Amino acid sequence: MKYAEKSCVEFTDATFSNAPVPGGGGVSALAGALGTALGGMVCNLTTGKKKYAQYEEDIQRIMKEANEIKDSLITMIDQDAENFLPLSKAYGLPTSTDEEKAHKAKVMEECLKGACSVPVDIVKTSYKVIALMEELAVKGSSLALSDVGVGVALLRSAITGGWLNVVININSIKDAEYVANVRKEVEPLVTEGMAKCDEIYMKVWKTLQK
Amino acid sequence: MKYAEKSCVEFTDATFSNAPVPGGGGVSALAGALGTALGGMVCNLTTGKKKYAQYEEDIQRIMKEANEIKDSLITMIDQDAENFLPLSKAYGLPTSTDEEKAHKAKVMEECLKGACSVPVDIVKTSYKVIALMEELAVKGSSLALSDVGVGVALLRSAITGGWLNVVININSIKDAEYVANVRKEVEPLVTEGMAKCDEIYMKVWKTLQK
Repeated sequence: MKYAEKSCVEFTDATFSNAPVPGGGGVSALAGALGTALGGMVCNLTTGKKKYAQYEEDIQRIMKEANEIKDSLITMIDQDAENFLPLSKAYGLPTSTDEEKAHKAKVMEECLKGACSVPVDIVKTSYKVIALMEELAVKGSSLALSDVGVGVALLRSAITGGWLNVVININSIKDAEYVANVRKEVEPLVTEGMAKCDEIYMKVWKTLQK
Repeated sequence: MKYAEKSCVEFTDATFSNAPVPGGGGVSALAGALGTALGGMVCNLTTGKKKYAQYEEDIQRIMKEANEIKDSLITMIDQDAENFLPLSKAYGLPTSTDEEKAHKAKVMEECLKGACSVPVDIVKTSYKVIALMEELAVKGSSLALSDVGVGVALLRSAITGGWLNVVININSIKDAEYVANVRKEVEPLVTEGMAKCDEIYMKVWKTLQK
């Protein structure tokens, strides 16, 4: 059975267990999907309301995009598990001879890049949702404003969680160019994403104080 | 069917929908449970390892506590839904006469306090896990260090997400003493919890850079 099809209780218990997956990667993907889903909920609670009629087109666009992103983050839960398993097997490869050592090093490099790819996507995909949430903080029903704030809190955890899973893999990758490219591509999204999420969260929090 | 027993896909889709629950409260409880489960996973990947034998008793204690907390946060997913539904019904009570207005105000006050209670528990319970994660950053297997970092990222979102759900409810509660007590009890846990989570996350991140 796919991990995404496990119940919330089962998935949480499987995370708790000593099984190699689901772990930090899958949990980050689920966190991103849940944060995005809260954005979708805000759209669903806004659409058709007279008070927000001027934003109807935007709400429809955001809802469609959030739905696609939510689905792709859900898919990443199982992609992460699939990419992690070959790596956990590669650690056990024999290293008695020089040939075996060279073979293991080659396999490890490929598996590490594989294990890195989904967390990279988790960060990039979750980052995209922040702009949608920023719009929803303005155009979404004020009755659901707290859900925008909870949504960015979840997206922040997906980004920072995904990033740690990128970092732990690139640390062991020998291909310096690959590592430099990943860092160059992902690190700014993490820094900017965290700042943006905090900004939207504080904006929501302050508005709720009024 | 209980929400916690829905699959991750179903739960995420139910969040996305226009149904009043699950919303920000239930998602925050699930985020807390997932963060706590990552702590449990670190314990499971540490226990019995020679290298960490000196911490075995601590690991066992942390694992037991994390397991209880994970279960109670999972329970809060459905408790939050149960407490929210009467509130969403109370909004629709008639207000044609003074008697009706007075009755609605009384019911609303009770329902708002009910809707507030689970988010308060989400913050308090998730906060407790931070100290366990802090210990695991030192005593847990270094191979699972990134999972400690992802865990605190999730716990941070549970705390900030839970807090917004407290705030949105206490804003409408008339009982000033109740509101003051909730603020006094919960707000310091939020401020301190965010700072602690950021501190542990940065510590993990820096260690992974080495």
